Amino acid sequence: MEELVGLREGSPGSPVALHELWGRCPHIRRGIRGGLEWLRQRLFHMGEDWCFLMALGVLMALISYAMNFAVARVVQAHNWLYQEIGDSHLLHYLSWTVYPVALVSFSSGFSQSITPFSGGSGIPELKTILSGVVLEDYLDIKNFGAKVVGLCCTLASGSTIFLGKVGPFVHLSAMIAAYLGRVRTRTIGEPENKSKQNEMLVAGAAVGVATVFAAPFSGVLFSIEVMSSHFSVWDYWRGFFAATCGAFMFRLLSVFSSEEETITVLFRTSFPVEVPFDLPEIFFFVVLGGICGIMSCAYLFCQRTFLGYLKTNRFTSKLLATSKPLYSALAALVLASITYPPGVGRFIASRLSMGQHLDSLFDNNSWALATWNSSPPWPKELDPENLWLEWYQPEFTIFGTLAFFLLMKFWMLILATTIPIPAGYFLPIFIYGAAIGRLLGEALSVTFPEGIVAGGVVNPIMPGSYALAGAAAFSGAVTHTISTALLAFELTGQIVHGLPVLMCVLAANAIAQSCQPSFYDGTIIVKKLPYLPWIRGRRIGSHPVNVGHFMNSTITTLAKDAPLEKVVKVVTSTDVTEYPLVESTESQILVGTVCRAQLVQALLAGPPSWAQGQQRLLQDLLSEGCPTTPVTLQLTPDTTLHQAHNLFELLNLQSLFVTSRGRAVGFVSWVELKKAISSLTNPSAPK
Amino acid sequence: MEELVGLREGSPGSPVALHELWGRCPHIRRGIRGGLEWLRQRLFHMGEDWCFLMALGVLMALISYAMNFAVARVVQAHNWLYQEIGDSHLLHYLSWTVYPVALVSFSSGFSQSITPFSGGSGIPELKTILSGVVLEDYLDIKNFGAKVVGLCCTLASGSTIFLGKVGPFVHLSAMIAAYLGRVRTRTIGEPENKSKQNEMLVAGAAVGVATVFAAPFSGVLFSIEVMSSHFSVWDYWRGFFAATCGAFMFRLLSVFSSEEETITVLFRTSFPVEVPFDLPEIFFFVVLGGICGIMSCAYLFCQRTFLGYLKTNRFTSKLLATSKPLYSALAALVLASITYPPGVGRFIASRLSMGQHLDSLFDNNSWALATWNSSPPWPKELDPENLWLEWYQPEFTIFGTLAFFLLMKFWMLILATTIPIPAGYFLPIFIYGAAIGRLLGEALSVTFPEGIVAGGVVNPIMPGSYALAGAAAFSGAVTHTISTALLAFELTGQIVHGLPVLMCVLAANAIAQSCQPSFYDGTIIVKKLPYLPWIRGRRIGSHPVNVGHFMNSTITTLAKDAPLEKVVKVVTSTDVTEYPLVESTESQILVGTVCRAQLVQALLAGPPSWAQGQQRLLQDLLSEGCPTTPVTLQLTPDTTLHQAHNLFELLNLQSLFVTSRGRAVGFVSWVELKKAISSLTNPSAPK
Repeated sequence: MEELVGLREGSPGSPVALHELWGRCPHIRRGIRGGLEWLRQRLFHMGEDWCFLMALGVLMALISYAMNFAVARVVQAHNWLYQEIGDSHLLHYLSWTVYPVALVSFSSGFSQSITPFSGGSGIPELKTILSGVVLEDYLDIKNFGAKVVGLCCTLASGSTIFLGKVGPFVHLSAMIAAYLGRVRTRTIGEPENKSKQNEMLVAGAAVGVATVFAAPFSGVLFSIEVMSSHFSVWDYWRGFFAATCGAFMFRLLSVFSSEEETITVLFRTSFPVEVPFDLPEIFFFVVLGGICGIMSCAYLFCQRTFLGYLKTNRFTSKLLATSKPLYSALAALVLASITYPPGVGRFIASRLSMGQHLDSLFDNNSWALATWNSSPPWPKELDPENLWLEWYQPEFTIFGTLAFFLLMKFWMLILATTIPIPAGYFLPIFIYGAAIGRLLGEALSVTFPEGIVAGGVVNPIMPGSYALAGAAAFSGAVTHTISTALLAFELTGQIVHGLPVLMCVLAANAIAQSCQPSFYDGTIIVKKLPYLPWIRGRRIGSHPVNVGHFMNSTITTLAKDAPLEKVVKVVTSTDVTEYPLVESTESQILVGTVCRAQLVQALLAGPPSWAQGQQRLLQDLLSEGCPTTPVTLQLTPDTTLHQAHNLFELLNLQSLFVTSRGRAVGFVSWVELKKAISSLTNPSAPK
Repeated sequence: MEELVGLREGSPGSPVALHELWGRCPHIRRGIRGGLEWLRQRLFHMGEDWCFLMALGVLMALISYAMNFAVARVVQAHNWLYQEIGDSHLLHYLSWTVYPVALVSFSSGFSQSITPFSGGSGIPELKTILSGVVLEDYLDIKNFGAKVVGLCCTLASGSTIFLGKVGPFVHLSAMIAAYLGRVRTRTIGEPENKSKQNEMLVAGAAVGVATVFAAPFSGVLFSIEVMSSHFSVWDYWRGFFAATCGAFMFRLLSVFSSEEETITVLFRTSFPVEVPFDLPEIFFFVVLGGICGIMSCAYLFCQRTFLGYLKTNRFTSKLLATSKPLYSALAALVLASITYPPGVGRFIASRLSMGQHLDSLFDNNSWALATWNSSPPWPKELDPENLWLEWYQPEFTIFGTLAFFLLMKFWMLILATTIPIPAGYFLPIFIYGAAIGRLLGEALSVTFPEGIVAGGVVNPIMPGSYALAGAAAFSGAVTHTISTALLAFELTGQIVHGLPVLMCVLAANAIAQSCQPSFYDGTIIVKKLPYLPWIRGRRIGSHPVNVGHFMNSTITTLAKDAPLEKVVKVVTSTDVTEYPLVESTESQILVGTVCRAQLVQALLAGPPSWAQGQQRLLQDLLSEGCPTTPVTLQLTPDTTLHQAHNLFELLNLQSLFVTSRGRAVGFVSWVELKKAISSLTNPSAPK
């Protein structure tokens, strides 16, 4: 028997040889086979799960790389066209503006015609989905094409429109994760499992960020901070695995295509390691955090207000409802006209691509000191070696250009976010923050031209480090995250400014979080998506609010002993998706729930015994096959608000019934929880 | 009125001037005052909470720095003694060994005499506390002194004993956090709040790690990964704030004491940024991860087995129970004798301190290539410029020394972890991993002496990067964490090896997590502390287990209409802390719980009406003042295992009652959950 197994398992060509080789020591053979089997079981216990995560990472990396490749070619073609078109200002202007206008209106028209969900970043919607709300079709794979094509067009319009790709990539990644999850369920033959799906979506969000920035650590942390308020370490590990696969593949492709020698970071900096900054500079870093925090509040407020204005204004709301491509084209025309380089554009460094913006802003050297005595002319063409010259205008100085950039981009960014195209809003914010930091850094380097004297060696102040801190702080404040600090390090490959950048981000977040909802929460509010506010700080401790205080006690129960006529009346007069089923009209003891749709079906398919005049009760209907769902969780009127909130958040619930001594006395859904929380925050609000 | 307010609020010296200055424009004044008030409310809404977090960070930083300072002085004294004592081998040997033996036995005796909780790292116990178990007195501030003094002695014995300070610092930090939490509750006059206390403890754990390594990011992430299976983003932010304060203060002190020019990282590396590694090296990094994973399994297995052996062996268990200092002294003597430099110690680089171990192992250059043709002699005294020479023995080569180091430290580390002193086990593991990586790196640098040819430039292989990856991977595998990768970057200030190190850590974790419980979980198991196992992977999906399947249905209920005699009988015959209170013996509808202690008190203080022969019922007793607690959460037999597990983990519960249609039918506690989970893992286990 042992030999037969050996024969069957050997490769077809060499059964005898193998047999001869191994046949003499069956003990060792069995031992080895057992050991291998044990190892296989141990290692691949949840093997196929990891395979799907790896597939997710690799797929997204391929898409990200392919998209970068295609976009780079289109941008290159545009640049060539712009340079070769001759000396006529009109032709130049047309070649500069027509391109993005056409791309953006196509992006808007194409993606909106396929699916209305494809506009915007997608992170707010994903956040809503992860908190348990079902947004029909939002993660359907058929939206994929619309989003990819639309995003390509958006990115191809380059720094004119000034939008990024993080948000849509999170959405794309979530679509693929949902699709892979369905494939997985089908291949394994497992029943649909909501928590499993959510696990895949969380990993998808991490992969989305990681494959854009090749930054697995901050990808995972950023997606966690943005998406959820609670998370499990298990999801975090899965996210790491998927994000690492994605980031590795993404960078590997750029090595294979000979863009890079080896796997490196995206925006390499070379700050000195010995004395990167002097101690007093910490103070300026914190000040920078404060400035970024205040600016982010202003930005968030204006952005939300403008979005609201567009929705209420008669003209724009009509335009946005009926002809989105026209609105997009108009907005793109405005943006492209302003960025036209020989015009206003030269004062806002508009010839730089978004990557070059970051590359130049993270520059070690002080531009203000470099242009102190000499004033290099504005180069006719972009000089890849001296990108920073784009930021210098002899009549304006560095400070003028940077300040003008901040001023103009403030409203241009807000305008760009209203265009209904697939686009990410993180990278522009990151660059904007870098410009804020750069401005402060340059000011400091002029104020202290001597730099830092440490140990007899003079170390000049590096405005690049302030740009780094500003980018992390502003983007962190706008999105209410701290992991942007880590992102800044992962993007640049250096972590020498660890503490100052972190303190800067914390200061910015302290201001932004206490004054404004985050960018994504703001979008959720404007789009009127369902969401559950946080309970923060000690308020909860000082107000012991119980479910009994805020539950909705007007519930319609169906008693098992109710006559069918009454059931029909209840079903026709109310409009909820499920009814609580109680033991009897008198006792009101909760025994389960009945789905409205199934109940209606069962009522319509009433059996022949229906007409016999004999009074039929609901329990007869149930015993004939109308399915009921058991109650798995229930609240009591004494459950605290905190506990209920935790339950809803962690288990992604929609509503729960409240029972008191077994009797169904009410229910709690998001609506009630939200009201209760807001009345905690403003004690004067109506309870 | 407006003016009066102005007068009252102005500073005493200048009321008139202020009044004159501001009096003319009451509107602006009111506006400014309103704005300031609004800002104050916004910013300091939870102000005192943040103050306590900051205090926690700063205090721990002070303690950490002071301890480092004191330990450095003691170690210096020892080194001086060892060098100056003359040429006699015996004197040398005695001066080398007596010092650590005395310190360790004092550490063990002193700390154990004050409190038995002070031994070990403290992380396993804190993990248990954070999951909701109350370990009496474990976080009492009176343990503080014992732990601090004991830890100082442990650290002062230096690399002889080879133990670190992370674990005890987490424990110390948690003690201070708990103390500050109590102070806070008292000053604010808020009722005790368990979730608030836990928030402080989580922040404390993060501060503990952050103040040892000056690494806020990995401090927060490491403490999260080690401590809990779920966590809230809110706790994560608080942790960041506290950890940043701690790390900043810790580094600030070393600047103030002129140790450093400015705030920098602890173990600075200077890997080249351009081409840090070649693509094929990724393969070796993953192989290194595999090796570290396998080694960590061996280490964890041997460590647990040896600990178990010590507890069961008659001689050692008696020794450990009665005379801990003697056991500690014996173990220290063994360790010190082996590390005696002129003896075996020269082959395991025992003259280096633990920090120097890391510093030397992270060295850029290849030692094997440097000693290929020349063979520098073993220096008589430690050369601070060329620490790596300690690793070279002419007759042994670099490989021999590194391999011998790994071999010896394997059992020496296991022996050291059994000594009952306050000590951390993370840093030794980190160094051990670095040595593994260094060995592989040196082998590679010899195998490929040409290095990496990229773009015509030859970049030699850097064994230091393998040491970095090995340290992260081995410590990550032993503790089952991924954030050790981030710790490696934060310690060195460079993140150029981001992806390879992360892949190395993931590979090591994949092996370790599927074969062995983590170091801390292993300690929890050996110490028989209560814990709740994880539910992993898809097992949960394929086995729809409900609470009804595994709940404990033998509960003793107290009915409101039960006669007191029966109640007395129940109370005397059972021994639970609380009884479920039901409406009546017949209906068994759960209405609340009664605490045993309070019930006994009420029964003993029976009122005079007791003796009148009239049958008194439990409800009479309750109405006379015996307090009952309402049920805030309850399970139903249809609740899934997954939901129940989540509830227990997130809300830190101990046990819950199960009701079916309002009737109390059972209860679920950790014991039942643990059994149910283990029967999932081994379907053959008894249910």
